[in-house]
Amino acid sequence: MHPQNSDLDLMHLLADCASDAILPHFRALPGVENKAQQGFDPVTVADREAERAIRDSLADHRPQDGIFGEEFPPTAGTSGRTWILDPIDGTRGFMAGLPTWGVLIAVAEGAEPVAGMMAQPLVRERFYAGPGGAFMDSYRGTEAIATRSCRRLEDAVVACTAPQDFDQTMLDLVERLSRRVRLVRFGVDCYGYAVLAAGHVDIVIETGLKPFDIAPFVPIVERSGGVLLDRHGERIGGTILDGYGGDGIAVGDPALVDALMAELG
Amino acid sequence: MHPQNSDLDLMHLLADCASDAILPHFRALPGVENKAQQGFDPVTVADREAERAIRDSLADHRPQDGIFGEEFPPTAGTSGRTWILDPIDGTRGFMAGLPTWGVLIAVAEGAEPVAGMMAQPLVRERFYAGPGGAFMDSYRGTEAIATRSCRRLEDAVVACTAPQDFDQTMLDLVERLSRRVRLVRFGVDCYGYAVLAAGHVDIVIETGLKPFDIAPFVPIVERSGGVLLDRHGERIGGTILDGYGGDGIAVGDPALVDALMAELG
Repeated sequence: MHPQNSDLDLMHLLADCASDAILPHFRALPGVENKAQQGFDPVTVADREAERAIRDSLADHRPQDGIFGEEFPPTAGTSGRTWILDPIDGTRGFMAGLPTWGVLIAVAEGAEPVAGMMAQPLVRERFYAGPGGAFMDSYRGTEAIATRSCRRLEDAVVACTAPQDFDQTMLDLVERLSRRVRLVRFGVDCYGYAVLAAGHVDIVIETGLKPFDIAPFVPIVERSGGVLLDRHGERIGGTILDGYGGDGIAVGDPALVDALMAELG
Repeated sequence: MHPQNSDLDLMHLLADCASDAILPHFRALPGVENKAQQGFDPVTVADREAERAIRDSLADHRPQDGIFGEEFPPTAGTSGRTWILDPIDGTRGFMAGLPTWGVLIAVAEGAEPVAGMMAQPLVRERFYAGPGGAFMDSYRGTEAIATRSCRRLEDAVVACTAPQDFDQTMLDLVERLSRRVRLVRFGVDCYGYAVLAAGHVDIVIETGLKPFDIAPFVPIVERSGGVLLDRHGERIGGTILDGYGGDGIAVGDPALVDALMAELG
């Protein structure tokens, strides 16, 4: 079987491994280290155990592929393909006992993510995409997903995580947008991109991202009809493993991009 | 059976009715009216259908009790007991397809809520309390819950929903807190109080609340060991059906109240 055909099957298996490793630690007051000297960036036991479980499974199923994860050093591969892992994206939401965090898994060919998944073990939902399209698994079963039409900023629902993560340029943007759009919603973590792909949010603005925070959302957002850009309006997809770091501005309806970029100034 | 003994059993039944009414409309692009002329306060079809379902069930099970709900006019009772209903608290999160909204149900004797429940149908979690204590139902089963110890603001995790909902006094408070506490988390909706009661968040700050937004959290927060106050440090529990409107400041560890009130100035 060509690897691409089974990428999503393998991702479901990896997400199962991660869920089994994580859930016993959720709301169980796990040990917290302070990864960054300043600020609050907890690494939980769950984070490390989940990435270890995913890496063990990849060693069995894809020994030729590289691995780039949040918790352990990169592993070089020989296939030109790299798995990109963030076992718990949204660790601050996780630590607060909220259901907004997710398991992020992507696979890239070169620097370009070609398939990706966001899994939420507590809600038991998964959003994922590959060459065959973008999908959501929920209590309703599996459904194809698509972004919704939104042609005016005045109709847009905007989502982001924490205003305190933004630099002045992005704070100014969100401040200007908040006077114009229908709603600005904070605290979404990775769910923001997922619900944009599924057609419930129109714009997601995040910054300070690392490759594993955004990689799966390149195929998920793009295969569902949206675009994923930096603040200069450039597509970030092809640079994910090639020096990328920073913005992740998702727009569900590409017709809205010009108006958004005009607000960025 | 004395009504109090079966309040929580009835609440589980009412939450089942509400879930059945709501879930078919979640992420299904239901009709949205603009309840307020300014701002964004959607009333969904789901909201009305769920409150109708709860009211129908209460008419069968508690015909002598009054009903005070968000979507329909109050119904007077003869028992001195009143059911307080917000079928979808966090409608903005609901409309954005996020799992942070909840079904809120409380019953008051006079103006005092004596039992309450927050149910999240998508996550299939319920947080509830009555005279017998405070509990959480999750995929782990039923567990007693309690707030956690937190004696210094520097260790506190603070949750609130939307900075744009705050007046200047509360904006200033959150701004001051954000320089001092461990984390300020936005976008929590009713989950903030639930995870505070379960010991994962230390302070919740909301304002502009109506009785049905906060009523169930009086027993849930207090029975789990916390306090629920207004900005003057007064307990709000006894005023819920007696002119209450405004703040809902929950503190998990009562030892933290003085420090928080000092920050309020």
